[in-house]
This record gives sequence, C-alpha cells and structure tokens, in this order.
Amino acid sequence: MAKDEVVDPSGDPGALARAVGAAMYARDRATQMLGIQIEAIGPGSARLSMRVRGDMLNGHAICHGGFIFTLADSCFAFACNSHNQNTVAAACMIDFLAPAAEGDVLTALATEQALAGRTGVYDIVVTRADGQRIALFRGKSHRIAGTVIDPGSTGLAA
Amino acid sequence: MAKDEVVDPSGDPGALARAVGAAMYARDRATQMLGIQIEAIGPGSARLSMRVRGDMLNGHAICHGGFIFTLADSCFAFACNSHNQNTVAAACMIDFLAPAAEGDVLTALATEQALAGRTGVYDIVVTRADGQRIALFRGKSHRIAGTVIDPGSTGLAA
Amino acid sequence: MAKDEVVDPSGDPGALARAVGAAMYARDRATQMLGIQIEAIGPGSARLSMRVRGDMLNGHAICHGGFIFTLADSCFAFACNSHNQNTVAAACMIDFLAPAAEGDVLTALATEQALAGRTGVYDIVVTRADGQRIALFRGKSHRIAGTVIDPGSTGLAA
Amino acid sequence: MAKDEVVDPSGDPGALARAVGAAMYARDRATQMLGIQIEAIGPGSARLSMRVRGDMLNGHAICHGGFIFTLADSCFAFACNSHNQNTVAAACMIDFLAPAAEGDVLTALATEQALAGRTGVYDIVVTRADGQRIALFRGKSHRIAGTVIDPGSTGLAA
Repeated sequence: MAKDEVVDPSGDPGALARAVGAAMYARDRATQMLGIQIEAIGPGSARLSMRVRGDMLNGHAICHGGFIFTLADSCFAFACNSHNQNTVAAACMIDFLAPAAEGDVLTALATEQALAGRTGVYDIVVTRADGQRIALFRGKSHRIAGTVIDPGSTGLAA
Repeated sequence: MAKDEVVDPSGDPGALARAVGAAMYARDRATQMLGIQIEAIGPGSARLSMRVRGDMLNGHAICHGGFIFTLADSCFAFACNSHNQNTVAAACMIDFLAPAAEGDVLTALATEQALAGRTGVYDIVVTRADGQRIALFRGKSHRIAGTVIDPGSTGLAA
Repeated sequence: MAKDEVVDPSGDPGALARAVGAAMYARDRATQMLGIQIEAIGPGSARLSMRVRGDMLNGHAICHGGFIFTLADSCFAFACNSHNQNTVAAACMIDFLAPAAEGDVLTALATEQALAGRTGVYDIVVTRADGQRIALFRGKSHRIAGTVIDPGSTGLAA
Repeated sequence: MAKDEVVDPSGDPGALARAVGAAMYARDRATQMLGIQIEAIGPGSARLSMRVRGDMLNGHAICHGGFIFTLADSCFAFACNSHNQNTVAAACMIDFLAPAAEGDVLTALATEQALAGRTGVYDIVVTRADGQRIALFRGKSHRIAGTVIDPGSTGLAA
C-alpha cells in the first residue's frame, strides 16, 4: 500500500478502490464502447479484460496496436486513480511482443511500481488467454486537484 | 506531405506511398471505425485526422488517451509502411501535453527520423485545430517479410 | 521562446541562458569528468560535444551506451535549465541508431518541444562528425523550486 | 542471482552466464572505469553495484542521471548477453524516482520480461542501500551475430 494512500474512515482501501472504479467506469464512455470489463480493482492495482472485435483489426488482420494500448491505458487509469485522488497519464511507453487475433480475450494487469508526491509509475502487462504476453506498458501518472468521488458518497465513511 | 520528402521522378515514390496507403486503409477496419481520415501520404510521412466523438471520452469528459494514441499509431503505420515493405510497430512512447474535447479535430503528422536495416524511428505530433500540441509520439518500427501491395498492381512503373 | 520564459531585465534571454549554463557547468563535475564541452546555449536549446575516450568503450570496443546517454542527458539539462528555473529530468527515452568508436567526436543538440506549467519535453539528437545520427533521446523535465543563478549575479539585470 | 533463474543440471546455464559475464567484464573498460561491481549473474538476470563518487555529481550536487543510467544499462547488458548470444541495446527508457548522493551505494537488478526471436525486454530497478528505489529502467535488446565467448572455452559441457 502506497504510504500516502487516502485511507477512508472505514479502514478498507479495497472498498474505496472498488467504489472509485465503479464511479469512473459509469462515466467512461470510451472504455465502455470497447467492451472493456473491470475484473478487479485494489489500491494501486487493476485487472481489465477486452475481447478483440472485428472492427478492432488493422490492415494485417490483427488487433490494431491502438486498442491494445487503450486497454492498457484504461487499466493504468483505474489503478492510478484507485486512491481517490484525481490522476492523469503524463506519459506512456508500450512494447508490442505478440499479435492478437479477432476473438482473443486480452487481460491487462496493472501494478504500482512507485508513488511519491504527485507522480507515480505503473506497469501493465497484457496477456492473451493462452498466457502469451502481448504487450508491456509503463505509465507515468500525475496527480491533479480533486478527488474522483466524494468519500462520503461511497457509503464507506462512518 | 513532409517537407523533407524525396520525390524520385523515375520511380515516383510519392505515387507508390499513396497507393500503399489506399490499400492499407481499405482493409484497416480499426482506423475506419474511428473515423480517421488520411490527409496526405508520402515516402516516410503521413498526415491523418480524427474528430473526437462522444464515445471517445473518458470519465473526465476528455478524449481517452487511448484514442489519441491510436490516431498517432495509425499515422505511424501509414508512414512506416509507405515504402511498401511490411512493417510493424515494435515499441511506442507518448507524452500527453494537453487535453482534447468532444468535437475537436486532431491532426497527426508523422516524419521519419531514422531508417536503417529493418528498424526505423518515426516522430508523430498530434495537434488540435487551434494549433495546440496535444501529444508527442515516438515509434520504433520493425520491417517483416513481404510487401504491402504487389508493386505491379499499382499501375506504376514495372 | 517558451511563453513562460523568464525574461531578465536586460531583455536578452540568450545572455541569461549562457550565464546559467556557465554557472551550471562550473559546478557539474560529472560533465567535466567526461570532457564534455558546451558549444552553444540558448533559451530552450543547447549544443554539447564529447570525444569518445578509450575508457568509455564497452566489451564490444564501441562507446558504452551509458556515455552516449550521459552526453544527451547533460545537453537536456542545459537546455531545460536555460530559463533559469531549477529543472530536473523526470524520465528519458533513448533509441540507439549506430555505434561510436574511440576518437569519435559526438555532438548533441537539444530543442524544446513543449513547455507548459512545470513540465517540458526536449528532443536531443546525437550525431557523429560524419553526420551519422547515433541516438535519438527524448526527455521529460520537471521544474522544481528556485533559480539556477541569482538573476542579479549575471551582470545582466539593470 | 534472480529467483526465477532456471538452472538446467545438464547444461548449467548459470555457469555459462557467469563465464560470459566474466569475459564481458574483463574487456568492458567503461564499466570498470565507474567502479561498477558484478554481484551476481544468471540466465537473463544480473545484479550490479556502484558507489557514487564525487566526480559523478552534477551541478545540483547529486549523482548525474547519466551515471545512474549507465549502471542500469550495464546491468541490462550483462543480463541480455547471459545466454551467450551477442546482444545490443536498441532502446532504453528510464524514470528517475529519487536522487543519490556522494557515497551512496546503488544496486541494479535486471530481470528478463520477454525474449522471442532476436528481441528481448528487460526491467532494471536501481535502489539505494536504504531500500529507496532510485530509478526504473526498461531496455529493449536486439540479438546480433556471434557469441560472446567460445562455448568450448568455458570448460563447460561441449
């Protein structure tokens, strides 16, 4: 757990992270449009999945790298906002390791590597259902003003 | 068209680049799905545009970084395949500079920074219509086997 | 000229940049230890050079990438501090394009790509004397508190 | 030695990795010049250390980022060459997290994240003796022709 994590009064950062994720997802039309599902969220971490659709294929009949990036970037966003501090992506880097085909279900897992002051670093690994790593993503986050949700609105605060 | 484009009167690489781009675009469902338009293509360069739609917005009501990346990545793909050698993205890096709102028209311009052996480096700048730079993208390309189109099929010199 | 550049009272940002660079160089033992020379400094830009010594070679008898990076990173530092605001590197990315041999004189040229709020992006190109590009470097800067030099100490202020 | 190292009793890749590392170090003047020590080498992994000297400090009296990069880059080189296939760095990315002072002993640990065909991805974490992470480095490797050492010269199995 990052040392400057906001701990809600109920003492359950996992519940706060899930409440933040649910609120973010509800208003994130881009993530919804791609059929991305949230599998799990915790403090500093997230796991999302996406099925590669026909309209995500590029001219080589494989998933356009932009959608693999978008899955990873959404996963990064849910992880770095999980402490309920508004946080945006400052820079991202992605290495493409293997292709994904139509119908493949891709899973992205984000883990917090560093968090100090306003800046964090998160690693996201994207894998296919057969276990093959598709892409390695590293994102640098920057905290801005405000919280994602009103902590009192979660029903967590005493 | 990039200002440092070399046009060879004997072989007309500009015409080849445009023919390759047209063939790629026709089978690139992902780029079409996002409404991305090809504005210009030349040897080693490309300029593409995209209007930010409502379903591209994230939970902050700004364009999801994944779609800004996808626009830049498509631009990178058209530029690095413009020599009619099948080429894929190996790694990409993006710095986000400013947000884009619904309705904004974003333009991506790719220029070839290096090309030696199978490897190239391309810089893509994404700007809003008001001239503000939105993102800086750098992509590393890797040439694989085959050509994008049969050179004979372009109606260009045999 | 970046819009939030500090303009000294004498109205000569070039002179301020040079004064800042001279002060930085005088206390930068690392840059001196490698024999790096400052060729030119301006607002948001710098040009530095370094001769590859025998003790900079790696096991392949070519210049260790770390020293090519260090030259580029120093160039980045002089460029991003040239506005006389203390600024540090937050992240850097380098693509290695070609090797350098003992005796090669390498030149690094930094240009400011973006500067807004506390964050900037700089591109540095490292070339050999024969014009071959050796490496492409992109650095993200973060401004911290304080100035590099007391503006009054430059002899520039009225 | 990395905990996920696979030791094959028949071929002893650990012994091969150590023999390769010893041969590389003997001819790597740059790594020696900086006083870098090899703590451990295994297949796909390496751990190196460096004490920050006075002549590694920059104008802010902290270790110049170029030397932190160089330590990480050497660690990357020992890890990606450990399979006794000549391998070079294609691109590297570094995030700077915290400063290092004169006298600090820095440790870099490299782990192999991906290796397929000629291309690999390695993560290197640089820490201070107090456990603080100083930098996160990710390197992309490219295998070239040849081996680092003649396998027969190691005294290992023919």
